[in-house]
Amino acid sequence: MTRIAMGVEYAGDAFCGWQSQAHGRTVQDVLEKALAQIAAHPVRLHCAGRTDTGVHASAQVAHFDTMADRPLTAWVRGVNALLPSAVVVRWAAPVDDAFHARFLAYERQYRYILHNAPTRPAMLAGRVGWFHVRLDELRMAEAVACLVGTHDFSSFRAAGCQSKTPVRIMREARVMRQGDYLLFDFRANGFLHHMIRKLVGALVYIGKGRCPVGWMQEVLEARDRSGAAPTFSPDGLYLCGVSYPSRWSLPNDGRIIALPQLPLV
Amino acid sequence: MTRIAMGVEYAGDAFCGWQSQAHGRTVQDVLEKALAQIAAHPVRLHCAGRTDTGVHASAQVAHFDTMADRPLTAWVRGVNALLPSAVVVRWAAPVDDAFHARFLAYERQYRYILHNAPTRPAMLAGRVGWFHVRLDELRMAEAVACLVGTHDFSSFRAAGCQSKTPVRIMREARVMRQGDYLLFDFRANGFLHHMIRKLVGALVYIGKGRCPVGWMQEVLEARDRSGAAPTFSPDGLYLCGVSYPSRWSLPNDGRIIALPQLPLV
Repeated sequence: MTRIAMGVEYAGDAFCGWQSQAHGRTVQDVLEKALAQIAAHPVRLHCAGRTDTGVHASAQVAHFDTMADRPLTAWVRGVNALLPSAVVVRWAAPVDDAFHARFLAYERQYRYILHNAPTRPAMLAGRVGWFHVRLDELRMAEAVACLVGTHDFSSFRAAGCQSKTPVRIMREARVMRQGDYLLFDFRANGFLHHMIRKLVGALVYIGKGRCPVGWMQEVLEARDRSGAAPTFSPDGLYLCGVSYPSRWSLPNDGRIIALPQLPLV
Repeated sequence: MTRIAMGVEYAGDAFCGWQSQAHGRTVQDVLEKALAQIAAHPVRLHCAGRTDTGVHASAQVAHFDTMADRPLTAWVRGVNALLPSAVVVRWAAPVDDAFHARFLAYERQYRYILHNAPTRPAMLAGRVGWFHVRLDELRMAEAVACLVGTHDFSSFRAAGCQSKTPVRIMREARVMRQGDYLLFDFRANGFLHHMIRKLVGALVYIGKGRCPVGWMQEVLEARDRSGAAPTFSPDGLYLCGVSYPSRWSLPNDGRIIALPQLPLV
């Protein structure tokens, strides 16, 4: 039995989320089907972050066990030939059976990309969020700082969240502007269900002046989701990094590199 | 009668090109339908560059005539509410009836974005071209320089090209690398059918070492398409600028701005 870890990139707007469903086209479903064809036996995948419908990943990590003896290229190029165009395996690496993509990931990184312009995006429809009124990124940058540290994030948790505890360790929380785009970067040991989309919703309220900068801390301390802003759209949300203990030295764990200047006017 | 000019952005992989077809979903078709609803009469659009199936535009310019008296926002926000998500009107401006989006455009700018990495793109599938073997951008940059100037581009012309003359004035021709992406920028008074995709095909031959740097000039001077490389995929091609005489001072004519760093690993 060999355990294989892999890095996966996908456009979430083409799928009903990561997790396998009886009646849904999910990332897990299409990957397991392609892997099973290469392995010639059923394959069960475990991932680091079970993204929701519409949420993208540039650096999802998953693992599976196989009895098949295949060269590593079979798990990359072979599988990719069987996958739909919106999902691709970036790398594969053998790991020992102590590895687990979900339970050993000690940090996840997400980026939310918001198109902040009067007209909605077309080229990147479904790939970036949109808000038509100019937002004040300095107010949002000030407000987001209070999230760093160990906190009870109950106020930013979906009603159906399955997590045992609402406490998370936020190691990085930033808001930056790049032209007509706002970037929201979050790095934590883990995230509650809908947590980032709810954080972005609250920050937009602050950025447009509906709530004062100090409101972020108030909502956080209230530990009550009823006082928070609405959950923002999944369109701009990317899982872009997962970190594991260095003994596994996986091909990547969260490097973000630049996309070239797409000619978006 | 009022003549309105507009800037349009679209993801070309969602359409069968710009030009209206009896049995095809084209950009012109969906725009004319939406404009007709706002105008309450049939509308005929004329554009600067009739892009092929799969080719994108960040700054297409088009114009139409209308008898309807509407505020400018109706031609932007009103029309956008009626359009599919992959196309959007960025701006609208009244112009006098001497304006013509196609005949008065004295310069067009295109960018080809090529993902040069071992695995195919997923997040930007259909939005960037792909070549799996590392290409030498310095060889390509050297080769592309011979295209600048006034030349007969018959070697880079589709068999069915309708243009009266194969001569074009190329004002800029550049190749740059940004990480795993190669950018090909071309600016000319106009382009022949498939011209940029054929130029990119030839440059890829040079970049991978199949042909010497001087081959570009040889092919150009041969004025014969039979000796050229195959036409490259439309996936990475963007119409990103159209220039008009300054008397019309349109809201934009070819500004390229940066997309934020999408979290593509």
